[in-house]
Amino acid sequence: MRKTIVGVMGGCTASAEALDGAYHIGRLIAEHGWTLLNGGRPEGIMDASSRGAKEAGGTVIGVLFDDDRDNASEYLDYVLPTGLGSGRNIINVLSSDVVVACEGNGGTMSEIAMALRFERRVIVLGFDPGAAFLDRCGRGEWSLAATPDEAISQIKAFLESPKQ
Amino acid sequence: MRKTIVGVMGGCTASAEALDGAYHIGRLIAEHGWTLLNGGRPEGIMDASSRGAKEAGGTVIGVLFDDDRDNASEYLDYVLPTGLGSGRNIINVLSSDVVVACEGNGGTMSEIAMALRFERRVIVLGFDPGAAFLDRCGRGEWSLAATPDEAISQIKAFLESPKQ
Amino acid sequence: MRKTIVGVMGGCTASAEALDGAYHIGRLIAEHGWTLLNGGRPEGIMDASSRGAKEAGGTVIGVLFDDDRDNASEYLDYVLPTGLGSGRNIINVLSSDVVVACEGNGGTMSEIAMALRFERRVIVLGFDPGAAFLDRCGRGEWSLAATPDEAISQIKAFLESPKQ
Amino acid sequence: MRKTIVGVMGGCTASAEALDGAYHIGRLIAEHGWTLLNGGRPEGIMDASSRGAKEAGGTVIGVLFDDDRDNASEYLDYVLPTGLGSGRNIINVLSSDVVVACEGNGGTMSEIAMALRFERRVIVLGFDPGAAFLDRCGRGEWSLAATPDEAISQIKAFLESPKQ
Repeated sequence: MRKTIVGVMGGCTASAEALDGAYHIGRLIAEHGWTLLNGGRPEGIMDASSRGAKEAGGTVIGVLFDDDRDNASEYLDYVLPTGLGSGRNIINVLSSDVVVACEGNGGTMSEIAMALRFERRVIVLGFDPGAAFLDRCGRGEWSLAATPDEAISQIKAFLESPKQ
Repeated sequence: MRKTIVGVMGGCTASAEALDGAYHIGRLIAEHGWTLLNGGRPEGIMDASSRGAKEAGGTVIGVLFDDDRDNASEYLDYVLPTGLGSGRNIINVLSSDVVVACEGNGGTMSEIAMALRFERRVIVLGFDPGAAFLDRCGRGEWSLAATPDEAISQIKAFLESPKQ
Repeated sequence: MRKTIVGVMGGCTASAEALDGAYHIGRLIAEHGWTLLNGGRPEGIMDASSRGAKEAGGTVIGVLFDDDRDNASEYLDYVLPTGLGSGRNIINVLSSDVVVACEGNGGTMSEIAMALRFERRVIVLGFDPGAAFLDRCGRGEWSLAATPDEAISQIKAFLESPKQ
Repeated sequence: MRKTIVGVMGGCTASAEALDGAYHIGRLIAEHGWTLLNGGRPEGIMDASSRGAKEAGGTVIGVLFDDDRDNASEYLDYVLPTGLGSGRNIINVLSSDVVVACEGNGGTMSEIAMALRFERRVIVLGFDPGAAFLDRCGRGEWSLAATPDEAISQIKAFLESPKQ
């Protein structure tokens, strides 16, 4: 009965193109029956992906930086305030079967790094932080995706045949 | 669309009576349409309440002490490993609209203390840690409940008319 | 070469009597050559105990609730911001060889609870949260102390002959 | 009275060259009168840098991944167990005036990322994770250093004239 969780990471501010990608990856995650988990803020990649998933009838879990339930996207089903600040990044990573990293800053980069260290599958959508970084992080597999559709294909391939 | 979350706290080991109470409070939470959140372990109050909620068709979120997804109750819908140890107690508290505290040790007592400090409604089920402790913790309201039915009545009363 | 750390817990606001007790326990900790660790805020029990220790030539470590180095007592040698909010309470507890709990609210009560759960020696100075609470928390030993001098005697007795 | 803290990050396992670099950066930090802070493990970059600092008469703070005081380098003055797992990485970063990143995996990369996000000065010693990663993380300044001496020069320059 355990649900498959796809984590979508990314910044509070992002380019229009990245926000559009986040919205569409959110929609596609919901259409495939997976649960979306993100950082839950009412802005940026978090809000855009949540809106996409909700408009497609999906379920969204938001793990908040702050301790305030009201500082959250309106598109969340489950609001989990933590008050842990960046200490909550590790929860996002460990709770995800697959991590999709959209455009972001050091917070997002730290989530990619920890996801690979804890052997999560990471898909980097729409940008490239470089193999010099990604290859160093750990044993999780990573790949780049140019579009949400490509990211979804990579998620499906992984979930159908997870790395041993 | 935000779901109401009732947190059920309690120990890894507990008396048969407390485990029975946890099972029934889990059932009743599900029957009322609320989501159950707990520490997610495959034992004690956590496992018993999860089983109760699932057998009644409910939804259960487990926020794990460990970083290992597999060290979790089989009755969870959403498994959130944290690797934060006791640092995750604050998440359980902040994520709950109402906290039900069953028999437990220092972990559970710390959750009661932080829940009252962060102004959550706390219902202590089946034991009494004393007003000398409870009154000192903060501005959240607390009450004792002798039975799961009594606890549910208190939850309903609170959710219908939350403290300002 | 490992230093003995005495943690002093307590609230942001406290009675004049409790603040005076915190100042004196800080002084006495320093005079005995132990390191003081607390939550590092520039107010309440934290600031008073830090001032006491510094005025007696001691060393003080502050583990901050916030992520801002500047929101800290001026009497700290080592300022450790965490941004973890109440998630940092567990650090204070685990880092202390002995915990002295002064007047406080749910934050302080949560620290007492976790300290006893993780088998730390706890001395409650100047108030009494009740045996119904303290006995339930775990295997750490606890005692009440009416004065800073009494607390210091209890710390000395413990450090000279720690519980097995 | 607040001490200057230099954080040294790096992996549990590392090449002989990186371990030698960590030992020497530890020595040099102590010789300059700064306090060394690291993850405190009894192995890898953490143990090597601690040993270097202690052999030069310095002070070392270890912020542990685990909740066990005994799973720590013997070269620490202050042992701070957290039990927070990777959640403690943010403490290492926020507590440091300057961060020196030695060879490591995803844990170290996450610390670089968060350090730059929180505007800390980061010096990468002996390897290069790439500007495509480093430039994306945030507003903190970063530089590469080929040797411990070069790293120390960069630390000195920063501490004498910190970024506004």
